[in-house]
Amino acid sequence: MTALPRLAVTVGEPAGIGPELLVRLASMPIAADLVAIGNARTIAETAQRLDLPLHLLSPDAANDRRRGPGELVLIDVPMAEPAWPGRLERANAPAVTTALAIAADGCRDGLFDAIVTLPVHKGIINDAGIPFTGHTEFFADRAGSDVLMLLVAGTLRVALATTHLPLRDVPAAITADRIANRLRLLDTGLRRDFGLDRPRIAVLGLNPHAGEGGHLGREEIDIIAPVVESLRAQGLQLYGPLAADTAFTGSRRGLYDAYFAMYHDQGLTVLKALGFGSAVNVTVGLPFVRTSVDHGVALDIAGSGNADPGSALAAIELALAIAERRRR
Amino acid sequence: MTALPRLAVTVGEPAGIGPELLVRLASMPIAADLVAIGNARTIAETAQRLDLPLHLLSPDAANDRRRGPGELVLIDVPMAEPAWPGRLERANAPAVTTALAIAADGCRDGLFDAIVTLPVHKGIINDAGIPFTGHTEFFADRAGSDVLMLLVAGTLRVALATTHLPLRDVPAAITADRIANRLRLLDTGLRRDFGLDRPRIAVLGLNPHAGEGGHLGREEIDIIAPVVESLRAQGLQLYGPLAADTAFTGSRRGLYDAYFAMYHDQGLTVLKALGFGSAVNVTVGLPFVRTSVDHGVALDIAGSGNADPGSALAAIELALAIAERRRR
Repeated sequence: MTALPRLAVTVGEPAGIGPELLVRLASMPIAADLVAIGNARTIAETAQRLDLPLHLLSPDAANDRRRGPGELVLIDVPMAEPAWPGRLERANAPAVTTALAIAADGCRDGLFDAIVTLPVHKGIINDAGIPFTGHTEFFADRAGSDVLMLLVAGTLRVALATTHLPLRDVPAAITADRIANRLRLLDTGLRRDFGLDRPRIAVLGLNPHAGEGGHLGREEIDIIAPVVESLRAQGLQLYGPLAADTAFTGSRRGLYDAYFAMYHDQGLTVLKALGFGSAVNVTVGLPFVRTSVDHGVALDIAGSGNADPGSALAAIELALAIAERRRR
Repeated sequence: MTALPRLAVTVGEPAGIGPELLVRLASMPIAADLVAIGNARTIAETAQRLDLPLHLLSPDAANDRRRGPGELVLIDVPMAEPAWPGRLERANAPAVTTALAIAADGCRDGLFDAIVTLPVHKGIINDAGIPFTGHTEFFADRAGSDVLMLLVAGTLRVALATTHLPLRDVPAAITADRIANRLRLLDTGLRRDFGLDRPRIAVLGLNPHAGEGGHLGREEIDIIAPVVESLRAQGLQLYGPLAADTAFTGSRRGLYDAYFAMYHDQGLTVLKALGFGSAVNVTVGLPFVRTSVDHGVALDIAGSGNADPGSALAAIELALAIAERRRR
């Protein structure tokens, strides 16, 4: 029997719903060796408060045997202060990024096959003096990779040319180089990680109606269309640039394996409306597999016992599927 | 018995699917006096070619009696050249805008209660030397009104702060004046035309995550939030500025009567994905009722007999509902 894939799951913001999600995952049947990375005390207290079963094991004690219900293998990350649900604490921010570093290094060293991240709070990490723009950028920097953010909800997949930029900075970021590099990453990622032989990719325009022949902006004519044409000549199956507003209507969603949106709200608003609760964020281009939930830290419901592990479970399942595929 | 509401329906681009839609509408049971405005010969030939019943009546001959099946009251607009499905003809562009002018003047003179427009082709109108940016702007100019574009699909309603602008021009167009005026129009329109007593309006941010507290853009802090606050003080029920990407997820759609999006693709991509085929475009702020289909001229299927009148019918039904409400 081959060993189960080994998945690192980082707890994220300790005052958010991450600890509760880990406790809930511990009691779910998941065909993987989960290794949680976070503060042991916070997670144990969360289980106690919600009256949920939990037995924390150290990675050494786990000894490769199957997990029993409620058992969670944990790498304990020390934390400066106790965590209170809903209350951000600057002093605890270093523990959050330390967990990410342990996960990334573990992948590099062959200890893990994949990382699943639970949500962090960017504001409190930055307030603590640690520069941090997001998980995707953190892992990209650490691995020295050019990466692509891809959101997946069932067969609906949306990748982004630009991610967390003010809207006014988006047009200048739409360069031929960036578009070409990220389209190549997307094509490679869909083949390698999703088993799509010659993926059909819908490339959206930057402007409304994809610029309407230059009447509503010229980026489609000057930048996007030439890149699409040259990559098509290299064998990529690209469509567009397409008008975004009609590209996602019912019957057309079946025509494409993925969409390549020019900016955050153009691609993610429709994806989350159609797929929320099952959407998973995948970082394409890293040397290891990394997926994430599509929701935030939810400070408002932290500690209430109402955290829904659906998205975390979907992220784990997709990480497993990709890890299995890469092993073949 | 009160007379039925009188609806002008403009045929739009004669080489598109407008003529076929009119022929199909003529055989549908609709509780209104429809008056089509377009070229008689084009519409008659379309019926013949598709072997569909059609009897054209002049507005005088109609005499207020109920329409029989296949009967269509028509104001004939002369056209320079015969129309061919799928083939745009510059010489026929003046007939398209003339039909719109007849409809607008008819509303002004009390002949019609509402206008429903079938799609036009902006490019060919401009190529013919007639400045034209869209129906909405045409009617706004003619009526001297400040208007708002509102898309409606069932109970999902999305209004736009800016409409057909290149993306790079959007941030400069997000001014306090524009946001305030259009939010007032939206609030008034929802009360008057949709019978919503104190409509709940979700105001979206311009930037991803609504600017994330200034980390991803400052328009929310500097412009949008102050307007929202001051209108709230005047009694409007506004929420936001909200992150667009999570504002349309399943359970949240029930919280708002309408969304106010900052630009075209932010609001319409999700609306059309969720509601295509039943979405209707309403111009708020005109002295008369005006609705429109949410699709284009569809030159590729014009003449094939495959045009779907679903959106046209939805536009007619919504125009009727609003006209009835204004009569009360």
